Amino acid sequence: MKVGILGGGQLARMLVHAGIPLGLEFLVVDPAADACAAGLGEFVQADYSDSAALRQLGRCDRVTCDFENVPAAALAELSDHVPVRPAASALAAAQDRLTEKRRFRELGLDTVDFEAVDSRPDLAAAIERIGYPAVLKTRRMGYDGKGQALLHDAEDLELAWQQLGEYPLILEQWIGFDFECAATVVRAEDGQMRFWPLSRTWHRAGILRLAAPAPVDETLQRRAEVLAGSLAECLDYVGSLTLELFAAGDRLLANEFAPRVHNSAHWTIEGATCSQFENHLRAVCGWPLGDTRRAGVSAMVNFIGSMPDRDAWLSIPGAHLHDYRKAARSDRKVGHATLVADDSAGLRSLLEKIPPGRDARAFEELDLALG
Amino acid sequence: MKVGILGGGQLARMLVHAGIPLGLEFLVVDPAADACAAGLGEFVQADYSDSAALRQLGRCDRVTCDFENVPAAALAELSDHVPVRPAASALAAAQDRLTEKRRFRELGLDTVDFEAVDSRPDLAAAIERIGYPAVLKTRRMGYDGKGQALLHDAEDLELAWQQLGEYPLILEQWIGFDFECAATVVRAEDGQMRFWPLSRTWHRAGILRLAAPAPVDETLQRRAEVLAGSLAECLDYVGSLTLELFAAGDRLLANEFAPRVHNSAHWTIEGATCSQFENHLRAVCGWPLGDTRRAGVSAMVNFIGSMPDRDAWLSIPGAHLHDYRKAARSDRKVGHATLVADDSAGLRSLLEKIPPGRDARAFEELDLALG
Repeated sequence: MKVGILGGGQLARMLVHAGIPLGLEFLVVDPAADACAAGLGEFVQADYSDSAALRQLGRCDRVTCDFENVPAAALAELSDHVPVRPAASALAAAQDRLTEKRRFRELGLDTVDFEAVDSRPDLAAAIERIGYPAVLKTRRMGYDGKGQALLHDAEDLELAWQQLGEYPLILEQWIGFDFECAATVVRAEDGQMRFWPLSRTWHRAGILRLAAPAPVDETLQRRAEVLAGSLAECLDYVGSLTLELFAAGDRLLANEFAPRVHNSAHWTIEGATCSQFENHLRAVCGWPLGDTRRAGVSAMVNFIGSMPDRDAWLSIPGAHLHDYRKAARSDRKVGHATLVADDSAGLRSLLEKIPPGRDARAFEELDLALG
Repeated sequence: MKVGILGGGQLARMLVHAGIPLGLEFLVVDPAADACAAGLGEFVQADYSDSAALRQLGRCDRVTCDFENVPAAALAELSDHVPVRPAASALAAAQDRLTEKRRFRELGLDTVDFEAVDSRPDLAAAIERIGYPAVLKTRRMGYDGKGQALLHDAEDLELAWQQLGEYPLILEQWIGFDFECAATVVRAEDGQMRFWPLSRTWHRAGILRLAAPAPVDETLQRRAEVLAGSLAECLDYVGSLTLELFAAGDRLLANEFAPRVHNSAHWTIEGATCSQFENHLRAVCGWPLGDTRRAGVSAMVNFIGSMPDRDAWLSIPGAHLHDYRKAARSDRKVGHATLVADDSAGLRSLLEKIPPGRDARAFEELDLALG
């Protein structure tokens, strides 16, 4: 079985890694010669709409993506020749923040207030209704906090409009939340679904820093599963999907979803029986799904900008290092480590071995969450 | 850091797999175009003494091997250009069964009785002293039961001599043992050593079928560590090494050792915090060693000849499938699966899901050993 992957970033790299023991072959397509999945097997450096590359992908047994912004035309063409999973329609549903949030509402998922903004008058009307603080976001192509601005007052609004006004936008209410979490589900061709334990997540400057399947209320776990499950079902989704949520009082608000493997569930590689990567491949290939239960108690730390001192991390017992082999660059995710221990106390003692950094508060909150 | 590997079999495949998250690059050399590590990165199809291939390996940062019978001259040439770990001398120590057993004796390790056999009169004298039953083995290049014959009487002996008489041989006493086990150690450049829990192993027709870190007496664990540790130290060994042992009454007999990663410790991939593969690479690269503690309770089943029904195995929760992508062939190791559970009772219930086969007795013994 050969799986084609559109996109050769760290997610493709980890998909390929998960597929090797399963005996899968891969063909990875990425415009960048130094894509991090480039060295692990068959690789084609090409644009996603390159017809020769699409022909090669069309000869694979299955095609999947490592990011959601693959051109719709490319996916449509591919779908004539090979099963593309998740389907183009599922990817499209996540490409535009406005249709994404409207879909959430249609499915009965709670969200913050939002308004489409296509003009300066739209923005004025939207802020009038939603009020400050609010977040102005491009509807497409945003990630890791890019393409968005937090608005506290009219001055912020003016500045944001100057920066982003040329794009189709969405204005969202900004709310204080108790915590962020992410529900990851894998759905098979036959509709069977499995859920991993909810990930608690901590962001700074729009970038995920820390994620862990910290204990949460059983009711919250079930509620989040219902939300992620209904989304996967309505999209007739095949593969792993993550729904990002805000918990605010009694509300559980759907923020956005990723129709692919997702950073918040990287801990599943060592911290669950079957990872989001392996289960994505199992679903994509039409194979039985693997066990999503937690294995030990784990937490994942992102490396942003550059890799940390390798030997220091390798010296932490139970630390699993992941170097994506990306060139260092500000705000870039270049790797991660997952710490796994037998129990919360064990994880807490491992976390203490991590050199203190700018995310001390996230670690304190995780420490509290471990109970 | 780039690691060259002489040999591209399943051991190289699993080494490369373990090295990807660490950010290592690899260059694999194997004479076979369809070597199972061929598709995972840079690969050179060449004989081990091919001078162009050796030049390429010489430009790596480290070189290691996936089997012990690499030509000594090739290793000697390489050692002038790149650190070869384990060193050529350690590999040489395992290439000849006679020098291997003599080394065991020098180190004070108990072994069965043995005699060198270089002629028909040698064989007569050896069997006179050792007695039946005995095993006649080629001194070099034997694996998976190849190149050996069990002798019950003079007729067996005559037949075995006709088959093997042209090679340098060793005659070994055959003893009934209580069980077989294997001690795996990793040793760093600075001499630091870590031991995994002892593997209980079950062979049939000379081929490993089942291996598991089943509970053993703490004294046995310590005794085995002393034996494997003294061997690693005397060889100034760097990397993972496995010493295969027979437990017979109060005796713990050294049978043979592998100066490389070894089938009996494949369970460490999912069943230990840090696997024999990752720790081999860490040692070879001069990096800190990883934690060798058990993670859950596990057992590994070899797939011999051909891969079993994939979906049946993927449906066993806690089963981790490893398909080496080798063509089916009688008596060939083509893959394995490791079952991991939280405790012995959990593992026992997973083992019951495996379709019954010819190794039922090994599974019964494992069941007993799980306590």
